[in-house]
Amino acid sequence: MSVKWVPLLLVIQLSCYFSSGRCGKVLVWPTEYSHWINIKTILDELIQRGHEVTVLTSAASVLINPNMASAIKFEVYPTSFNKEEIEISFMSWINEWTRKSKESPWKHFPEIQKIFWEYSDYLERLCKDVVYNKKLMMKLQESRFDVILADAVGPCGELLAQIFKIPFLYSIRFTTGYKYEKYSGGLLAPPSYVPVVMSELSDQMTFMERIKNMIYTLYFDFWFQTFNEKKWDQFYSEVLGKPTTLSETMGKAEIWLIRTYWDFDFPRPFLPHFDFVGGLHCKPARPLPKEMEEFVQSSGKHGIVVFTLGSMVRNITEEKARMIASALAQIPQKVLWRFDGKKPDTLGSNTRLYKWLPQNDLLGHPKTKAFITHGGTNGIYEAIYHGIPLVGIPLFADQPDNIAHMKTKGAAVSLNIDTMTSTDLLNALKTVINDPFYKENAMRLSAIHHDQPVKPLDRAVFWIEFIMRHKGAKHLRPASHDLTWYQYYSLDVIGFLLACVAIVTFVIIKCCLFSYKKLFKRGKKKKRE
Amino acid sequence: MSVKWVPLLLVIQLSCYFSSGRCGKVLVWPTEYSHWINIKTILDELIQRGHEVTVLTSAASVLINPNMASAIKFEVYPTSFNKEEIEISFMSWINEWTRKSKESPWKHFPEIQKIFWEYSDYLERLCKDVVYNKKLMMKLQESRFDVILADAVGPCGELLAQIFKIPFLYSIRFTTGYKYEKYSGGLLAPPSYVPVVMSELSDQMTFMERIKNMIYTLYFDFWFQTFNEKKWDQFYSEVLGKPTTLSETMGKAEIWLIRTYWDFDFPRPFLPHFDFVGGLHCKPARPLPKEMEEFVQSSGKHGIVVFTLGSMVRNITEEKARMIASALAQIPQKVLWRFDGKKPDTLGSNTRLYKWLPQNDLLGHPKTKAFITHGGTNGIYEAIYHGIPLVGIPLFADQPDNIAHMKTKGAAVSLNIDTMTSTDLLNALKTVINDPFYKENAMRLSAIHHDQPVKPLDRAVFWIEFIMRHKGAKHLRPASHDLTWYQYYSLDVIGFLLACVAIVTFVIIKCCLFSYKKLFKRGKKKKRE
Repeated sequence: MSVKWVPLLLVIQLSCYFSSGRCGKVLVWPTEYSHWINIKTILDELIQRGHEVTVLTSAASVLINPNMASAIKFEVYPTSFNKEEIEISFMSWINEWTRKSKESPWKHFPEIQKIFWEYSDYLERLCKDVVYNKKLMMKLQESRFDVILADAVGPCGELLAQIFKIPFLYSIRFTTGYKYEKYSGGLLAPPSYVPVVMSELSDQMTFMERIKNMIYTLYFDFWFQTFNEKKWDQFYSEVLGKPTTLSETMGKAEIWLIRTYWDFDFPRPFLPHFDFVGGLHCKPARPLPKEMEEFVQSSGKHGIVVFTLGSMVRNITEEKARMIASALAQIPQKVLWRFDGKKPDTLGSNTRLYKWLPQNDLLGHPKTKAFITHGGTNGIYEAIYHGIPLVGIPLFADQPDNIAHMKTKGAAVSLNIDTMTSTDLLNALKTVINDPFYKENAMRLSAIHHDQPVKPLDRAVFWIEFIMRHKGAKHLRPASHDLTWYQYYSLDVIGFLLACVAIVTFVIIKCCLFSYKKLFKRGKKKKRE
Repeated sequence: MSVKWVPLLLVIQLSCYFSSGRCGKVLVWPTEYSHWINIKTILDELIQRGHEVTVLTSAASVLINPNMASAIKFEVYPTSFNKEEIEISFMSWINEWTRKSKESPWKHFPEIQKIFWEYSDYLERLCKDVVYNKKLMMKLQESRFDVILADAVGPCGELLAQIFKIPFLYSIRFTTGYKYEKYSGGLLAPPSYVPVVMSELSDQMTFMERIKNMIYTLYFDFWFQTFNEKKWDQFYSEVLGKPTTLSETMGKAEIWLIRTYWDFDFPRPFLPHFDFVGGLHCKPARPLPKEMEEFVQSSGKHGIVVFTLGSMVRNITEEKARMIASALAQIPQKVLWRFDGKKPDTLGSNTRLYKWLPQNDLLGHPKTKAFITHGGTNGIYEAIYHGIPLVGIPLFADQPDNIAHMKTKGAAVSLNIDTMTSTDLLNALKTVINDPFYKENAMRLSAIHHDQPVKPLDRAVFWIEFIMRHKGAKHLRPASHDLTWYQYYSLDVIGFLLACVAIVTFVIIKCCLFSYKKLFKRGKKKKRE
């Protein structure tokens, strides 16, 4: 092997050493659940490279545990919320969304907006708990952070960055209708081939699907509000002491790290300050716990099926569990099912229930044949990483969309949790396990995922370090940020040019008419003479 | 230093070993002069990594020398052209373009189209010399290449790829108006903030500049034809035995490697199958020849100025040379001037003339203070790489644009070769050498250039290898390629939705009128009763 790559890598490896002789200081404004799991991978890597990472978290956080064994520092701020209250809110939002997402979009979307606005109020209270906490703000100010890393679905990070006058960047899966990516980030999403999130469409659309995509785009652009913007705009203007908006403040992000890549997402236009780092949390499988490994090995040539509905859904109805268990009992594979409810009486001897599963380690096990999933982005990416075909049972948020993507790419069969029968689940499992089409496609996506010039995690960390080294990434910022919407679409220019054409046409017609009249009159005069 | 990067790199390093146990076979359709110099860097790297590279070149090529000491294979095909004839044609096109480019665009552009069409005819003849050479085509077919690398400003590579049924990719600086990048590649170029090539505009435009940019965009999109497309379309349809066009065939490219990056170019939207690899040919300076090093060292603390107008311009008028020499004589720096004409009598003792200069080695020399350049992209990138401020004397093609970019970025002063005086040149040199603003900006661009996750050359080679490994890069191809222009802009969808709105409005109005009439009649009837 030639070693000439090494010097470049040495530079990257040592990049945290600034001219001042110190590593960087990163402040993190995180969100909960799977978003935290994803962003934590980046933080661990930053720590590995010698940076100092401080996570701002409320005393009532559900998943962010300040006592975890980690070099990450936690700045825990007091809040009027308590943990149980937040957990109950999240569970009720999820249940509501899951229930509503089976209804027609026009009944469903206003309900989702209601959920989002409750979530927006919760976030605003948290943000105020930080910003109006003078002692904390003084401490943060004095810490002189180099950069803020925030999740764009939880506003506040951008406000802190403006207050402390430091650059910030986002990690983000999506905002409804790509609204903030578009209106704050400048991302383009032509509705003719970029399916809007929650449409469950692919990039290859029929005429009727393109109509649906256009209507969804218009709806999300002009009607749906993810956050109660009026309140946020007022809050941000008040704190910053100048009239501003949430959207404008978010637009100051140096980089947008999108948690997808072209293995999973459909190719679409983007800008230099966007990078697609989907699957950055994926890693090779580690050995399983002894008991679990024995159970997996006992599956013999048939292999195993992994089944989980994610970190947010702990339980399903007893009836549903019975139906699922009876389907699982009929396959020759062994099944590992993350399930916290009452053991169904139809449970086969091939199925074991677990309160928690080492999902990535199981998906990376050579015996794994299929993954039954709700379709969260983290889980989907672990399946892509290890090349495992899916049976998708999407519940809410981007999950129906995620499964639709994997179905289009030939690596998944989709089921509806409300209407599916035991036979449907059985058939779906048999299909993805026995039809080589699904495994081949899963392996193709895996090959694409692994064959990138730089691993997604290294790219994410690179951009954070870049911002720290250069105090921003202004050279990547498109000038479209400085244009009004009518300038951006060249409407003023088109208007001016059309006016010019109209004036010239008018003058020409007038001249022609005048000349014609003159000639006509002269002709008449001559005739009279 | 942590060594965990190494395994990933091992994979990249060994990537040329396919499952069949052999490295890749690359066929190259090159163009002449600076384009060849640039693409050759990629070929050398491919060779270094164990691939087999075959360059298709005519017996009359100007710069491509099949006898050069290199592991590159040359497949030399006979042509009815001779080398002198081609060289004379190029020189006359350049002189014509340089002369015309000082005139108003509306006189200048049609002349450039004339030049392009002559160039187009020359390329078509070369392409026919290959495609209609049965013995050669049979040999190429039997060689079973894995990929074709072509320069998009010299059509034919895409035709060969279609005939041999192998994937291909482009290396490209630009086509006039970004026409082929847009209409074949699907690239977006909103005229509100993406200055069209040859406009000499930046991304920050005034209203009048945006009008200019819009008019240029419309002109290049709907009027200007880089190649005589009618002839190419007919030729391609004939060879492929089905109705097709040059633009459609070019649209099948797997990847477009653009020879710029965000150090030099303005941020703009792009697509996943575009990568920006500007400056891939740059490398650290090697030691200078002994005599040259001595001359450079004799400059003391003042340092040196490097002056060249590129590989295509060998000479300027005697009068112009006298004027330039007298300006150079007045600076305290030593000057190395690439000049092939009669020695000007005003030449100072500080200036030495050379028929050829090791440009990159000189720009990377610690004594170098400034670079006087015509503004070719290769030279500009060497200056960026080494952080050297520029005095630009642009002549033709993208050179005025390139210098305008560097001027906007604060690293260059621009001069007009026709109107500049000795004092202008002297002042420009004094400015870029003595005003720290220029050096600082040049160093900033250099820092951006060097701080990329992967070096441009490695990215270029990565994508070529990727295409060979995966027989294409279909996962990066946007679905917009399968849409007609009116589908792409959603005009059919908008038309349908407007028609629906119109029909609904019409029906509502009719219903209202009908109800009103009914009520009105009933009212009248009642009154009568």
